[in-house]
Amino acid sequence: MVRSDPFQPAKRVASQKQDVWTIVNEAATASPVQPIINMGQGFFGYNPPQFVTDAAKEALDRVECNQYSPTKGRPRLKKAIADAYSPFFGRKINPDTEVTITTGANEGMLSAFMGFVEPGDEVIIFEPFFDQYIPNIEMAGGKVVYASLQPPKEGATKTTSASEWAIDFSELEKSINDKTRMIVLNSPHNPIGKVFSKKELEHIGTLCVRHNIIILSDEVYDRLYYVPFTRVATLSPEIAKLTLTVGSAGKNFYATGWRVGWLIGPEHLIKYVSAAHTRICYSSVSPLQEAAAVGFERADELGFWEQSKREMKSKMSRFCEVFDELGLPYSEPEGGYFVLANLSKVKLPEGYDFPPHVAERPRDFKLSWFCIMELGVAAIPPTEFYTDENAHLVEDWLRFAVCKDDEVLDGAKERLRGLKKYMA
Amino acid sequence: MVRSDPFQPAKRVASQKQDVWTIVNEAATASPVQPIINMGQGFFGYNPPQFVTDAAKEALDRVECNQYSPTKGRPRLKKAIADAYSPFFGRKINPDTEVTITTGANEGMLSAFMGFVEPGDEVIIFEPFFDQYIPNIEMAGGKVVYASLQPPKEGATKTTSASEWAIDFSELEKSINDKTRMIVLNSPHNPIGKVFSKKELEHIGTLCVRHNIIILSDEVYDRLYYVPFTRVATLSPEIAKLTLTVGSAGKNFYATGWRVGWLIGPEHLIKYVSAAHTRICYSSVSPLQEAAAVGFERADELGFWEQSKREMKSKMSRFCEVFDELGLPYSEPEGGYFVLANLSKVKLPEGYDFPPHVAERPRDFKLSWFCIMELGVAAIPPTEFYTDENAHLVEDWLRFAVCKDDEVLDGAKERLRGLKKYMA
Repeated sequence: MVRSDPFQPAKRVASQKQDVWTIVNEAATASPVQPIINMGQGFFGYNPPQFVTDAAKEALDRVECNQYSPTKGRPRLKKAIADAYSPFFGRKINPDTEVTITTGANEGMLSAFMGFVEPGDEVIIFEPFFDQYIPNIEMAGGKVVYASLQPPKEGATKTTSASEWAIDFSELEKSINDKTRMIVLNSPHNPIGKVFSKKELEHIGTLCVRHNIIILSDEVYDRLYYVPFTRVATLSPEIAKLTLTVGSAGKNFYATGWRVGWLIGPEHLIKYVSAAHTRICYSSVSPLQEAAAVGFERADELGFWEQSKREMKSKMSRFCEVFDELGLPYSEPEGGYFVLANLSKVKLPEGYDFPPHVAERPRDFKLSWFCIMELGVAAIPPTEFYTDENAHLVEDWLRFAVCKDDEVLDGAKERLRGLKKYMA
Repeated sequence: MVRSDPFQPAKRVASQKQDVWTIVNEAATASPVQPIINMGQGFFGYNPPQFVTDAAKEALDRVECNQYSPTKGRPRLKKAIADAYSPFFGRKINPDTEVTITTGANEGMLSAFMGFVEPGDEVIIFEPFFDQYIPNIEMAGGKVVYASLQPPKEGATKTTSASEWAIDFSELEKSINDKTRMIVLNSPHNPIGKVFSKKELEHIGTLCVRHNIIILSDEVYDRLYYVPFTRVATLSPEIAKLTLTVGSAGKNFYATGWRVGWLIGPEHLIKYVSAAHTRICYSSVSPLQEAAAVGFERADELGFWEQSKREMKSKMSRFCEVFDELGLPYSEPEGGYFVLANLSKVKLPEGYDFPPHVAERPRDFKLSWFCIMELGVAAIPPTEFYTDENAHLVEDWLRFAVCKDDEVLDGAKERLRGLKKYMA
């Protein structure tokens, strides 16, 4: 018997639809304004701190740091993470059983879904969502169920706090049923910059305890918060029992290309995350695990975390000045390095020639394209992080990443002043 | 509704059976002979070449080399691989469409299975197999179908060539049906050390073309062959059209902990491997991709490949002397860095006290345990790489990895001479 199409892909990868990163990057390359100032993807425009890159270089000289690490991660890194996070968790984290290292937070989340989601299970995520969650859940056979975060009511007319993006708890409760296996939280939140309040987390946590829902808490921006930050796992022993916390050395140490992440959680959850990770990647990159270990060992004594937060907050304020100047409202972030600006006041010229793959998308794609082509500044259209049904909620917003050198931010501000002439 | 066990794992990770690596490593730690000489797992006992580690260190100083790489891999690495492999493939490989970078060969193979295997599809692999293949195939919903490699007929009585491990082609043909989606090849082969002959590969390739079966050719030991080496993808345009070739910078450059692998193949296959990889790991480790690129760019001019092969062959000969001395037959490898020795002449002392998890396994597990505890040398029992049904085929063999410093090999030889008193 001969297959009709031997090269037909599996359904899970069949869609080759252009994602937002490809659209924005290709537009950036095609822009007449060069070099483009890319505030789209959330990579850092500067190097990791030297004490961390030095540690990586030293690791490269040590035989065992270039060979396979244990599948659950290098003992030194697991210990460094347990030591660094035990004070936040208010208890002694066991590095051998309650920490597991993954190939970036991304593969860590996939490992969690692969560890607990069976075909037909449901996983609740909030819109807007980090786009990788969707294929990660679906690859495990899970069905994604959406709960929406509603933009600030006055977000189009004045600058508001990221805290005003609101959970609709009655919608959330209605989305829970006996197939609900996990819920994904993300705080500080990408792209909103919201730090979920203790009260909100308690409400979610209580629901999860009542319905035995595993919480997968994506806290990769956990060192960048500008208001009090609560970790959901610390709220009660009952919540801790069903919570997996995800972290990222790439986000913590300005090295998104290092692919070192981890999960912290109770042994009865962590062991299956490890098992899934072993089946996916076997083990994770050794010399950079060693460098991350040194990073955690030394960051406090060097004042790195305080410096990191202070610098990012300063970049955020520096950049947002341009929106204040222009009178464009934005959602003032409580954490992370993204800011959402509301461009409803910007009038796109009538008859402007958008290519078909942009013309057919919501207004934010057109705003993004326009800023790239006319101003030379790239930002991300956030409707990509919503379902089609709810995309209209954010079609006037654009997401800017401020994890760039100050001169780059200043250059972007100068260019964005060009929006003035398109405003009523 | 409340789940009965909220922490029940997904079936795909539910088995927490001790794997061979854990058993051997734990035995090694518990051995009274310390330090143990570990010839078990195939990690290198020495560092990557300095021109490659230097390149990694330089990459760590460059901002863009520490941030996200494109999901399909860094252009420099894809080009370096296309340039390095085009001569072997006898055609110009397109770096943009025919090469994709993965997080080690392991995640590369998973990406291939995820790209093409639907639940219920069958994938043929040869026994003995690399143990990760099984969960990788099953995670995509595939069913593993086994075809056995038969040990040399006289393997227990005299040293034979690894070429004598024989494919049963009638069994192989019978295992093909209309659900057969892929076949996995591995040449040079782990653990056998067999380099599949051109004739064998042509036979397999013809079957695959006839039945439209995608060939996933694991060639991670492709720079270590001691007889003529044929790449299946080069046999004919028809075979090339359905072949994905897997490679590994970790194996090529003595850095198993770097997690940089790749696949080469036609665009209609590669694009779905890339799509799966994006959904699994998003992107792969940046600074070590850059270092691997430099490795491929410079290896030829520095004579590295020839040196690498010459040194490994010399290690193999050096180590195998001890088996010649002892009169223990072995399967002389045609490639790679593993050697299988036949220990049927070794009599384990009657009443020797094996722990239950070893006592219940085939004789090779006992031989492995005994060598660790009594001699202080760790080797891998190969029945782990066979189905239960066929495990008896190799229950007298042990696998030794010779990718270690010469002094380590000499130390192992000295300890293995202690087997003499257990031989008839």
